[in-house]
Amino acid sequence: MKAKTISLEHGAGGEVMQELIGEIILKNFHNKSAGSIGLESLDDGSTIRLENFNPTSELVLTTDSHVITPAFFPDTNIGRLAVSGTINDLVMMGAKPLALTCAVIVPEGFSIHEFEEIIKTMDETAAEVGVPIITGDTKTMEKTALDSIILNTAGLGITDHPVRDSGLKPGDRLLVTGTIGDHGISLMAHREGFDFDTDLVSDSAPLWNLIEPLLKLRTPEGEPVITAMKDPTRGGLANALNEMASKAGAGILLEEELIPFKPAVTAACEMLGLDPLEVANEGKAIIGVKSGYEEEVLSILRKHPYGKNAAVIGEVTENSKGEVVLRNHFGGMRYVDVPAGDPIPRVC
Amino acid sequence: MKAKTISLEHGAGGEVMQELIGEIILKNFHNKSAGSIGLESLDDGSTIRLENFNPTSELVLTTDSHVITPAFFPDTNIGRLAVSGTINDLVMMGAKPLALTCAVIVPEGFSIHEFEEIIKTMDETAAEVGVPIITGDTKTMEKTALDSIILNTAGLGITDHPVRDSGLKPGDRLLVTGTIGDHGISLMAHREGFDFDTDLVSDSAPLWNLIEPLLKLRTPEGEPVITAMKDPTRGGLANALNEMASKAGAGILLEEELIPFKPAVTAACEMLGLDPLEVANEGKAIIGVKSGYEEEVLSILRKHPYGKNAAVIGEVTENSKGEVVLRNHFGGMRYVDVPAGDPIPRVC
Repeated sequence: MKAKTISLEHGAGGEVMQELIGEIILKNFHNKSAGSIGLESLDDGSTIRLENFNPTSELVLTTDSHVITPAFFPDTNIGRLAVSGTINDLVMMGAKPLALTCAVIVPEGFSIHEFEEIIKTMDETAAEVGVPIITGDTKTMEKTALDSIILNTAGLGITDHPVRDSGLKPGDRLLVTGTIGDHGISLMAHREGFDFDTDLVSDSAPLWNLIEPLLKLRTPEGEPVITAMKDPTRGGLANALNEMASKAGAGILLEEELIPFKPAVTAACEMLGLDPLEVANEGKAIIGVKSGYEEEVLSILRKHPYGKNAAVIGEVTENSKGEVVLRNHFGGMRYVDVPAGDPIPRVC
Repeated sequence: MKAKTISLEHGAGGEVMQELIGEIILKNFHNKSAGSIGLESLDDGSTIRLENFNPTSELVLTTDSHVITPAFFPDTNIGRLAVSGTINDLVMMGAKPLALTCAVIVPEGFSIHEFEEIIKTMDETAAEVGVPIITGDTKTMEKTALDSIILNTAGLGITDHPVRDSGLKPGDRLLVTGTIGDHGISLMAHREGFDFDTDLVSDSAPLWNLIEPLLKLRTPEGEPVITAMKDPTRGGLANALNEMASKAGAGILLEEELIPFKPAVTAACEMLGLDPLEVANEGKAIIGVKSGYEEEVLSILRKHPYGKNAAVIGEVTENSKGEVVLRNHFGGMRYVDVPAGDPIPRVC
């Protein structure tokens, strides 16, 4: 590529756009096909072949836009966030990821080198779970109309048993797959120039390899051991748990002392007056598990690098229906409310 | 809704966002489900059930972002453009649309009334072809960071015989489903305040019902009669035909006198020095047809309102491989080049 920055012509559908797609996107996406027509065909879409389709299976479709700024943050960038976020939406539904889309909207003047870094990161993240990126779209906007790159990724998956975020039952144990608040606090620290003297980084990660073994677990009666899953992104644990409690018509009792926080997250939240339960996470999951199976699930999770800090954080109750209650270190109880708005805008 | 305009909290993942989704999106989307989990579940994604799945079928996945401004134009808005565009990408692949996603990115200060109009238009457009909108995403951005609403729609379809844009063979006839250049010229006129004393409006439309009957046509040898399809959006006919010629390794000979243009489009292009072949279309398709079947295909197309101006515009040739040649009204020939950039930015 001769050009060093994006111009409007890079999204105009002509030769200049073809050059960008050929030299940056097609060259850096290594896994581009799930059927007879893949990304390299640059057709109006791409195809997915379903081998040995089980008629009781369902497909799962999801979409997510990422508008975070700046697009680069400690250790990674918006590309990892987008691909992980969409893979995780499929995984939270109990679905094996089959294929992703990649739609980019880039302001004129955006560095082509940074654009290529983002594309490479998307490729690497998707490669972690072996999912191809099979189709895409490229648009440009005037720099007065848009200030930073936007990514939208849609994902297609398949499952024999969809996992709902509404499936909690009284008695279920609640687990998280790792420390809470890392993503939101690390981003805020980076963006605002705070220095917490720590190596806190975004924990954004694609969770299929971590979660897949759990989906096969069954009770002796043949019931799935995993009753519900949700990833606590915007609005953090507070928002995700309230949704899960409300949809299930059950209560949730959290034990504050069991929730894994990195010391830097606790310190930053105290200093800034933030509730760490409202801070966004990426690369973490809340998992509802039938009582009695929590140790088995924990031991599976902890074998994987993305689950090494997994912990039981509470349980589902008959009372306080639709509410989330937190028991603090001193035994005091308080309701955990739905946040009205995220205290840290644009973290995903 | 008490609020009259979008605030950042409408995309923050908390209660305010839930209100927007419940009162504007869920209320106005009438067809929200394709399986056991639909949009109204507001889970991490939604499911699609495949009835009587034929193992030789393939799924088709596509994505498109729409960044057009202003978001409202004569007779319709960005919602129709987005839903039609994604449906048409599936249709151009020969696929029956199964489900759509709807990801919106809205700047703070955007009118909630206009947002609701866009959502209603998306619903009406999808209803024309009976495709459900099953999952979505809502983000907000500061008004200094984004100047107008962005829609991304991904689409899932299914086909027994994918139609490629590379399938042209020498001898095939080339058809268009209607007049060329309407969308781009009507938008430019509206945006720039030109008055061509005409009722020219965007022709954006979902083409499944128009194209479906063509997909079943077979020669006595069992070959599909339709050899290739493409919608001439960004870069217009010039870009789409060059792609088709280049991918097929064949030439294309266009007869200028056969290409259907509305007089207002011809007049506007002459006045403004634009090549109407480079102007964007929405709701139009280029169709490659085996020689001898063009009249049958035309008669099917002309029965549908979206195909009433369908016409044969040229043919595929052995020579001029990879090139598009236009024979003008006086018999003179010229190459039709790939446009470097669209002369009218942000028409989709």
